[in-house]
Parts: sequence; structure tokens; C-alpha cells
Amino acid sequence: MDRHGAPLIDGLQYSNWSREIFEQMRAGGVDCVHVTIVYWETTIETINNITEWYKLFRIHQDLIMPVRYAEDVNRARESNRTGIVFGFQNCSPIDNDVGLVEIFHQLGVRFMQLSYNNQSPLATGCYETVDPGITRFGKQVIAEMNRVGMTVDMSHSSERSTLEAIDISQRPIAITHANPAFFRQALRNKSDAVLQALADSGGMLGFSVYPFHLKDGPHCKLVDFCEMVATTADIMGIDNLGLGTDLCQNQPTSVLTWMRSGRWSLEMDFGEGSADDSDWPAQPAWFRSNLDFRNISEGLTRQGFSSDEVDKIMGGNWFRFYNRSFTAHES
Amino acid sequence: MDRHGAPLIDGLQYSNWSREIFEQMRAGGVDCVHVTIVYWETTIETINNITEWYKLFRIHQDLIMPVRYAEDVNRARESNRTGIVFGFQNCSPIDNDVGLVEIFHQLGVRFMQLSYNNQSPLATGCYETVDPGITRFGKQVIAEMNRVGMTVDMSHSSERSTLEAIDISQRPIAITHANPAFFRQALRNKSDAVLQALADSGGMLGFSVYPFHLKDGPHCKLVDFCEMVATTADIMGIDNLGLGTDLCQNQPTSVLTWMRSGRWSLEMDFGEGSADDSDWPAQPAWFRSNLDFRNISEGLTRQGFSSDEVDKIMGGNWFRFYNRSFTAHES
Repeated sequence: MDRHGAPLIDGLQYSNWSREIFEQMRAGGVDCVHVTIVYWETTIETINNITEWYKLFRIHQDLIMPVRYAEDVNRARESNRTGIVFGFQNCSPIDNDVGLVEIFHQLGVRFMQLSYNNQSPLATGCYETVDPGITRFGKQVIAEMNRVGMTVDMSHSSERSTLEAIDISQRPIAITHANPAFFRQALRNKSDAVLQALADSGGMLGFSVYPFHLKDGPHCKLVDFCEMVATTADIMGIDNLGLGTDLCQNQPTSVLTWMRSGRWSLEMDFGEGSADDSDWPAQPAWFRSNLDFRNISEGLTRQGFSSDEVDKIMGGNWFRFYNRSFTAHES
Repeated sequence: MDRHGAPLIDGLQYSNWSREIFEQMRAGGVDCVHVTIVYWETTIETINNITEWYKLFRIHQDLIMPVRYAEDVNRARESNRTGIVFGFQNCSPIDNDVGLVEIFHQLGVRFMQLSYNNQSPLATGCYETVDPGITRFGKQVIAEMNRVGMTVDMSHSSERSTLEAIDISQRPIAITHANPAFFRQALRNKSDAVLQALADSGGMLGFSVYPFHLKDGPHCKLVDFCEMVATTADIMGIDNLGLGTDLCQNQPTSVLTWMRSGRWSLEMDFGEGSADDSDWPAQPAWFRSNLDFRNISEGLTRQGFSSDEVDKIMGGNWFRFYNRSFTAHES
């Protein structure tokens, strides 16, 4: 794909990583992907997941490479590889230890959600009934993330916590993978108030292609998706938008169970699904793998976005965000 | 001390354990103590703390022994030893894993606070600004604690979370170490509403002798303490009262810092103290060690409690509570 100088960056994926998928990333022209490495993992389990990724970097060094800073995305493009950014969807790896933020930043982690569906020691998840906002510990952790250059991600957090995180954080935050609630009323999708506050603070929204976040689910039409992007651009402006497809390719049901229930529930928790609809949803026909980003960029062009605007949404904005977010603030 | 058949049980201590202190327990006629083994520890650190205790049980087997069930208190008395019950002041050891409740019950843990000062994944701590109540995970953990026979302790939790825990728990809960707020307005002390709900549900209150929970702090008079017990008995009845002295003997300042700040804060958190008053408070003259329980029982007698009532408060009630709380519910 000709990206006119802007890289193609996906703001979130969690696939069953394999050489086949990395080859699809190359064939699809994907320059960088923020990959999830944690849902409910403990500190040590997280370190194990990181060492597994370090192994993948060695085995598939012709296809992928680690991205620690924005310039690594350029290096990936120049060497015809896909850059990989690590992120946590939960704060479980840092336990009650604010010092672990810097440790994991050193290991390459650049995004951390303050909560994942449930209440955490830092913030509230989107499936809780009551949201008290950012906690005492949460404020300490945000300050430390700001200092070392780890981005606060509120994709699975609830309204008040998200608004407070935007307000408390000294650096712009991200909602790496979610859609506006006006597109589909889902606890995971975001209100106009959140979108507005996010844009006002220079934060990023990554549009999700996960069916539970889409109008009509797996039957969502590309044109409806692109129209949603246009409406969101009217609210947030063009510079704070990106993709965060939430692509979960080739994952068994057991992984969905882990994402939803972790080890926290005595019963099965169906999350966005239900007892009757408990498996992975089917992907929309126009986005099934890393080969399909061209469908989205073409759809955005048909929607009336200029070539520069399409470039921004497809990765240029994420690149600019990486550039100002991953380095330490001098303290 | 002649206890007329009722054991002397202290509902909470966290001392710098030594043979000297165990000898004082024997000399003071203390039959059983619930000891804190966790403030902010991780799962593995908790297991280390337990193995340290197992070592103490071997080294000082002439003075102390583990209490896993109420009848072990009788065994301790019969063999002229002090029984030790394990408890967590925080839920950090169970991470996000409800299965660890049973693991730690097997290892001898009989009390767990759902939160310690701060918001936890389960409940809110008394120093947070907003209290959303028991979380999704919290409900799962309470159900599991009920099943295996681990008592919910809300000593350091805040109002709404405490009232909800009393309501949600199928077994009576405990506030092992706190005083009524009418005695001293402190975030750690409990409202009349909490005391009433606790008593109505068959739960236990352990009166604290920690100076920050006392009227006039270290200068609190024994007669004032005993009058508080009498007033509380008017609210809660005589059967739900015990001691939870919160005795922290011979601890260095570093331990106080650990209790207050753990690893969660970038700055020093002074908890109940302040920058000008950051060290351990002095104990009141009438309660400085395990030798001093006689002062309290004599004070209660002078206050007008009958010998049976004094027995109940000094340990009889805790014994009855242990008896119905530590065994598993058949599932």
C-alpha cells in the first residue's frame, strides 16, 4: 500500500501469533501493531509473556521487530518488517507496586489500561455498577506513567474513571480500541462527553472492528463503519483518530474465556456475549485479517476523506502520538 | 488469670515477633491471638511469611501453636500455649484469583480484609474519597470465603463497602480491630449504622487499643475505654464484642511506613499520623504488652460488667465466633 509517507499502525490486536499472521501483516502493509500481552496475568506471568515475545522476535526477525520508540516504526518500515508495541489491558502486572511501572517500561511496555471490565486498585471497569473514579493508588500510577512514558489506556474503563484519567494525566491518554456509543450502545463504547474530553486533551481514539462494538455486529457494513468515522471526526477533529481493530485472529474459545473470566469468577462471565452467544463473534466480511486494511482505507476515501486524512487515520496520528508519548519526562 | 472457662483471645496483633513476646503472651494468660501476616504482600511474599510462621511454630513449640479451628484454642490452653490464627489485612495475596482463597484457607488463613485503606479490586478502603461498595470480583470472593470458612474483615474498609459486605456475606463478618466513631472521630472507626448492622447479622467488633483509635490518643484513660465498651454494648448487645488490640510491639518505624505506604505511593503516606507525627504513637499506660490484659478485664468489672460478661468480651465471644466461622460449608 502506498501510504504517502505515513505508516500503517493498528492500535490494538490480540491474535494467536504465528508466522502465518506475521506474513499477513507484511502482505497487508502493516508497519506497526500494538499487541496485548496481558489480561489478568500476574507480574511473573507477564514477564513470561514478554520473554515469549522476545523469542518470537528472534525466530521471526525477518518479519517483526520490537518498537520501543516512534523512530523504531521507521526502522521497521525501512527494513520491511512490522513493528510490535507491547501493551497491558489491565493493571494486574503492577500489583500494588508503583515501582513496577518503570520496570515494565524498561521491558518495552508502552500502554496500560487502568482497569479491565472490573474495578481495579486504580480505576473502575465498564461492567461495574458504580464508578468512584480514579483511586489514591491510581493517581500515583498515572503520575509515574506520565514520568516514564507509558500511555494510560481507558478502553475498558467506565465513564467517570475515564474522564478523571483524562483530567489527571499530564500527558494525553488513549482509548486504543473502542467506538463511539452513538454507533452502538455498548458498555465498552464511549459517550460524546468522553470523546470530546479526549480530543480536547490531545488524546487518541482507536476505532474497533470487534463485532460487539459495531452496529449490526458481524453484519456491519463498511460504509456504516466509515460514516461513523466521519461523524466522530466532526466531534473530535481529524488528528485524534486512528484504528484499534481489536483483531483476535485464530484464538480458541479458551482464550475468550480467559479474557472474560480470568480467575476472578466462580461462574463463567460472558462479557459482551451471553450464555446463548458465548463464542468468538464472526468478523465482518471486509475485515478478517491483516490483509484487509486496504478495505478500510478505500472505504474512508469513498466516504470523502482526503488522502492526507486517510493517512492520518490509518496510522499517521498514532505515529505522532507515539512520538510524544513513549519517552521519559525529565524529573 | 482465672477466665471461668472462657479463653482469652485477642482479635488482632502485629508485633515484631520474638520469644520474649511469646513469653509475655504466656505470662499474660493469652490463649489465642489473631496475628496479621499481610499488609501489601504479593502471593509469593505471603507464602514466605507463612513459612516463616511455620518456623516460629517449630522453634517456639513450647509457647505457641497454630490455630486452624476453634478446638485448637482448647488444645492451646490445655498445653499451656498461645494459639495463633493467621489473617490478612488486605486482599493482595489473592491477586485476581478467587481460587487462592481456598489455597490460603488450607494454609491456615482465617481472616481477610477486603481492602486496606485504599480501593482494592474487592472493596473500598477508609481513606478513599468515594466508596462504590462491593465490586463484581468482591461478590465472588465473599461467596468463596463463605464456602471455605474464611472470615470477611472490614476493619480498614469504608462505610458503604462495609454495610454491603455485611449484607452480601452469608456468614457473619468481623471488624477485628476498630472502635466506634462516637469514641473518636477517625476514618478508621465505625458509625452507629455499621455497628448496628454488624450486631444484627451476628458479626463481631474487636475493640482497638491503638492510640489513633482512642479518645485522647496515648492519654486515653482506662475508665474512658471501658465506658466506651459499655456504650457499645448498649448498641450491639454483649455477645458481639471482643478485643482486637492492634498491639504492634517493638516494631521499627520502617514497618509503620510499610503498613501505610506499601509500594503504592511515590510519596510518604502518613495514614492516621502526619508529617509532624509520623512515628509509632505511644501506647496508653494501661496497655503496653500482652502482660496488660488483666488491666482491661479489671476495668470492665469496675465498669459494672458481670463476670460472665467480662469473660465474653475477653475472648468467649471470639471463641464462639471461631467455632461457627472457620469450618467449610458443604457445597
